[in-house]
This record gives sequence, structure tokens and C-alpha cells, in this order.
Amino acid sequence: MNIVVQKFGGTSVANLECQKQVMKKVLRPYREGNKVVVVLSAMAGETNRLLTLANEWSECPDAAEVDALVSTGEQVSCALFSMLLKQQGVQARSVLGFQAPIKTDCSYGKARIVDIDTEELKSMLETNDILVVAGFQGCDECHRITTLGRGGSDTSAVALAAALDAEVCEIYTDVPGVFTTDPNICSDARKLDRVSYEEMLEMASMGAKVLQIRSVEFAKKYNVNVHVRTTFSDEMGTLVTQEDTDMESVLVSGIAYDKDQARVTLVHVRDEPGISAAIFAPLAEKKILVDMIVQNPSKNGTTDMTFTVPRGDLEQTVKILETLKYEINYEELLSAENVSKVSIIGVGMRNHSGVAAKAFQALSDENINILMISTSEIKVTCLIEDKYTELAVRTLHKTFGLEEDGLQSERT
Amino acid sequence: MNIVVQKFGGTSVANLECQKQVMKKVLRPYREGNKVVVVLSAMAGETNRLLTLANEWSECPDAAEVDALVSTGEQVSCALFSMLLKQQGVQARSVLGFQAPIKTDCSYGKARIVDIDTEELKSMLETNDILVVAGFQGCDECHRITTLGRGGSDTSAVALAAALDAEVCEIYTDVPGVFTTDPNICSDARKLDRVSYEEMLEMASMGAKVLQIRSVEFAKKYNVNVHVRTTFSDEMGTLVTQEDTDMESVLVSGIAYDKDQARVTLVHVRDEPGISAAIFAPLAEKKILVDMIVQNPSKNGTTDMTFTVPRGDLEQTVKILETLKYEINYEELLSAENVSKVSIIGVGMRNHSGVAAKAFQALSDENINILMISTSEIKVTCLIEDKYTELAVRTLHKTFGLEEDGLQSERT
Repeated sequence: MNIVVQKFGGTSVANLECQKQVMKKVLRPYREGNKVVVVLSAMAGETNRLLTLANEWSECPDAAEVDALVSTGEQVSCALFSMLLKQQGVQARSVLGFQAPIKTDCSYGKARIVDIDTEELKSMLETNDILVVAGFQGCDECHRITTLGRGGSDTSAVALAAALDAEVCEIYTDVPGVFTTDPNICSDARKLDRVSYEEMLEMASMGAKVLQIRSVEFAKKYNVNVHVRTTFSDEMGTLVTQEDTDMESVLVSGIAYDKDQARVTLVHVRDEPGISAAIFAPLAEKKILVDMIVQNPSKNGTTDMTFTVPRGDLEQTVKILETLKYEINYEELLSAENVSKVSIIGVGMRNHSGVAAKAFQALSDENINILMISTSEIKVTCLIEDKYTELAVRTLHKTFGLEEDGLQSERT
Repeated sequence: MNIVVQKFGGTSVANLECQKQVMKKVLRPYREGNKVVVVLSAMAGETNRLLTLANEWSECPDAAEVDALVSTGEQVSCALFSMLLKQQGVQARSVLGFQAPIKTDCSYGKARIVDIDTEELKSMLETNDILVVAGFQGCDECHRITTLGRGGSDTSAVALAAALDAEVCEIYTDVPGVFTTDPNICSDARKLDRVSYEEMLEMASMGAKVLQIRSVEFAKKYNVNVHVRTTFSDEMGTLVTQEDTDMESVLVSGIAYDKDQARVTLVHVRDEPGISAAIFAPLAEKKILVDMIVQNPSKNGTTDMTFTVPRGDLEQTVKILETLKYEINYEELLSAENVSKVSIIGVGMRNHSGVAAKAFQALSDENINILMISTSEIKVTCLIEDKYTELAVRTLHKTFGLEEDGLQSERT
């Protein structure tokens, strides 16, 4: 049987009117003869309402009980949406995490999917044409309810599509798809028809708003075609899929940025084995995500170590490093909040040289100073002063011809 | 291990302050060394809020989906209450219907408990000191969530007490226990220390407000001691238990009444085999509960048939019988709304004669006309004009010495 998986977020199921709109989307593949697996989030605001209760009840609410609590949000939206479908005469039913079952580990609040028992789901699909599955939730081996973390419904949908070998996993959202860059910054940003899993993962700043990163990793691993599209029209969105030959001809797919950055420099660190661990292990322990790291070549046995952290973690980072001043043995600690990251992303870079050079030249032409550089196979990232973020994004977007349709690679 | 089951209703868990009061009640048996199984209802108003949503979503909401929907109410209160206990350092957890598991049939909305797997619960009680079980819900053999019908949490609690062989099942409510009659009518109504299952079942009008009738049937079947008591103090309530010798010495335990009655008389019905079925089968089909039935001795081949129905069903009853006038072949249909039932209840009646006669005399002394009489082993019921209800209750309460403590039987 042909199976289509569709996922709708909280704003799409927020009330009766919204759910009636969603029903139209769901009935389309159904009327075309497909079995449909609909994955729903909680009605907008509901998860926060429940979390507020938890925090009112306990200063440090038990994680397993928080999961039992917040999972009711998806249960409510699925039961209500199934009522709508049944009223239309459709053979449909709600399916909760423990019923599917979507088996996870027992990391309450951020559980990972371990297995989906397709036998049970397939038998439900024999007697039902549409299954309305509660996103975001699963159940561990002790039958306790788990949740997959914020935005986990995307992951639920992709995992179900993988397990059921679905034709496509449609993720409905409030934007029309994935853009070459943020349309709020660059008015001529263009919607991408296709983007590879790898690029999507690198496009965190644009991508994370559209599709939870973990779901992309899942899609990549199980090779699920993910169609990101809007709830508000029938317009085609962006297909997140395997890289193909056609894609490689496109040098750069998008420009991403991240303003939530802060820079820390330790001046004159003694350059000796184990020094990196001495700096970064205590930060990792406090779950501070260190991103770009640059170490200058050693001079007179000392070096400068510069790295970035999320802006909200800067204060804590500085505190930790100050208490370790004598252990690490550095001369001075410098920090700056006014920095941001701008990245050029494209699988085509693998086979082309000169992308980085072209980007640096373009930024230099606009007198934008590059503070740090970090590169991967399919990404070049520059740290710059944050007041230049928008200018840098627009400049790079134009430099790589992203505002036009198609084959900008021809002109590189 | 010694197990105590406690059940708290919606008003008892309505908010954080209420739940903190409940926690004190729960910690008492826990600190005395017992394992405690707490059964909770949804927070007051929550079930109605969810049912309102269901009716907004669908004119005739699917029963299975309604159960998936409303069962979230208990899930929320159990998760929150468990957080409170965990915060106190108590080993506790929430247990949902499917986790216990409380196995039911698949009559969604009014499911009946089929089995409770004590192995699972007992293993949970080994690692936990308090289990917070969602009342009102179970799960059928297809793992779908079911609910037991309004007030089903009482039944959940009694069933768990039976399955776990608990010392006692404490049902906390907003009244101090079961009274000899309605204290609103009779200011000297007395709280009963003990009452038998059979009497409790017959005391529908007083009892149903305190304890769901189905839970009493369950308690009787499995011989569970049910202690009905108030949430608002530590005062002892009423023990609903097996009849014992001591009880039999008490002639009458209580006076019940029911104002929700209407009377129908079919005049000059042809008295022939099958006539009762012709009258009552069509009413049963429409789920109209016929209560007292009296048939006069036949005269000239015809008889008068009089019976009572709930007042709200009178109109429909009359309509049905009017359409069947020629089939049933009666001369006239009379109906009256201004009637009510007053009952004398007591297991002691089994071994004593004269109770009915004494009651009739007392009513007659007050010029209260008895319209119909119906008796069972432990109950005498009179239908009277409803304007006399309060007078009749007070008269009978006094006649059988219920306002005084103890041994009224001595004086009969």
C-alpha cells in the first residue's frame, strides 16, 4: 500500500477552524487512494500551559512525570482531529506513542527513538485509512511515556515515514519552504526546490526554524524524502532529499547566519599537551556548546586560544575560566558579545575550489572584517562584527547569484 | 505488604493548594509503614471542559476518541500530584490505565473492568512507596484507552483495593460519610459508623451522592472494606462493609427518598398474557427505567396498570404509549408528575415483622396518603404526593429512632 506521512504543527491544529483546514490537506492524498499517517503536535500554547503547571507544582519537576503531563497535549489534538475525520465517514483513529508503539530509550524529556513496531501500525492501517499519530511522544521499555524534546513531532513524522517506507513525509509549516537565506534580511531570497540532507543540517539558522535538525539526521540516515511546505496554500515547498548529480552543479545553496554568538579569547596560554582539554572539558561539563575554535601558532611556548559560545552562555563561560586561571595558566581573558556567524553552504563546494576566496573578497569589498574562519566540506563560516550581519548576508547572497533561478554555478 | 487505597475526587485535586492537603492525607498511611495506592480524578471542571471540546468538534463524537480525550484529565492530575510527592523525597510515580494495566471491555465511555494485572502493580510497589493511579480509565485488549463512566474513579479505587487485597479503600469526599437520611431535610440526621453493602445499594438517593453505586456492587462482590470519609478533616466516616450480626440488631439504617419520579396509569387494560411485555418492552428499548409497577386484580377481563418512571422521561413515555393505544388496548392513560418515593432501608428487616405496618401507621398519622407500595427484603418504598416528601422523611426518621445513637431495635 502507498503511504503518505503528513505532519502538522501546533498553530495548524490550534482550533476547530484550523483543524478543518488541516483536514482538507489530509483528505487529498486519501482521496488519491493513499493510506495517510497524520502526525500532530499539541494545540498551540498547550505544551507551554502544561509546563507552567509543572513548574508551579515543583521547583524541579520529575522528568518522567513532566512527560506524562505534557504528552496529554498531543493526545487531545489527535483525539479531536480523529473525531473530525470520523464525522466525515473516514475510517480513522488516534494512535498514541504507546499504541504505535514508538519505542524510545528512557531519557525523559529528550528521548531517542529506538524502534517502531510496524507490525502493529500496518495492522491498524488495514482497518483504517487514516491514522492520527501523536507526535513528540513515545514509550520506553517499562511502558512509561517519554517525549522527544521540543519540535520532536518532526522526528516522529520522519521516523514513521522511515518505518512504514512511506512515499514521502510532508512537513507542513507556516513558511513555504527552505530559502536561500532569511527573506527578512534579503528580500530576493529564493525558495529552494530541493536541498540535500547535508545542506539542510548546515543551514541551522534558517533550517531549524523550518525543520527540527534531529529529524533531518533521521531522514538522512533512513533516506526519507521530506517535503517541507506551507499549511496555507497548495504551493510546492522544498524537498529535502539525497544529494544527486543535479545538485552538485549548484555551487552554493544558501547563506546562513547566527547572531547568537559570543567570542572568548585566552591570551598567552601555555602551549602544552592537554591544554585544550583543560579549557574545554569544564565547559562541556556545564553543557556549554563551544562552536568555532581557533588556536594561533605557538610563539615562545604560548598561544592564543579563541572560540565562540552561545551568547547566553558567555557569562557562565567567563566565570568558569576565571576560576581556572591558574590551572590553565593564561595571561588574560578577553570576551566580546558583538559578533555573529555568517555561513556559505553548498554540496557543490566539494568539487569546486575558490568559493572561500570569492566570499572573503566580497566581504572585504564591503569593508567587513573577518574575525575568525572555519570551514567544512560543504560550508565556509566567517565570524564578523554583528552590526555587519545583514550586509554580509546580502553581499554573499548576491555574490553567489542565489537570487536568480537555477544555474549560478555556470558563472563561477 | 500492607496496602491502603485512597481515592480523591476532582474538587480535592482542583489546584495546588488542594493537592497539598491531599498529600497530607496520603502521607499519613505512608508514614505508618503502609504502601499507598492513590486514585485521582481529573481536576474539577477539566472533564467537562474536554467534553465541551468534543461536542464542539463533532455532533456525535466517536466514543473511543472521547475516551482518549477525557482520559487526559486524570493523566494531568496524576502527573502533577506525583511531582509533589517526588519533591518530598517520596518514591512515587503516576500509573495510567494502560500501565497498571486496568483491563476493561471495549464499551467506550462506560467500560467495565475485566481484570487488573496485579503482577505489574506489585512490582511497581516494590520500587515505589506510593503509586498515583489515574482513576476512571482503563485499556481494552486492543490497547485503546477506555473510561468507566462518570464517577468511575470510585470503581477504579475499589477494584484496585480488591485486586491488591488492600486493608481498606478510603474514598475521600466532601461529606463526612453516609447519613441516616438527608441532613438538608432532617437536621438530626446521624452519620452511620457502618452500613452494609446491600443497604448502601438501596440508599441510592443518599448514597449515590457519596459513592458511585457500581463501586458498591464491586466492593460487595470482592468484599472490600470501603471507608467513606471527608477530605476536610481527620474525622472517621462510614465503613461500607459486609453485614454482620451487630448490624442485624439495627432494624432500620436509613430513610431514602427520590423526588425525580412520575406516575403513569393505563386504565382498563385488557388482562391477557403478554400484555406486560407489550407495555414495557417499547419503553425499555428507549432506555426508560421503569421502577415501581403495580397491577390491580383483574375485573371483567381488564385491569389497571400503574408504574413510575424518572420525571424527565415522562413525556416520552406518554408519547410512546399513546402511539400504542390500539395495540395495547387500554381505555385511558393517566399521568402525574407530583409524586415522590420514600424508602425505609435496613438489613434488620429480614428478621423482624411489622416494619411496614409501623411505617404506614406513621404516615397515616400525618395524613399522608400512600399511592403505591413496593417492598423488598431490606426495603419498604411508598409513593406519595411530592409535597409531603420532607414531612414523610422526618416522620419516618423519628418513628424508627434514627436520630439517636445505637439500639433503636430494642424499642421495636
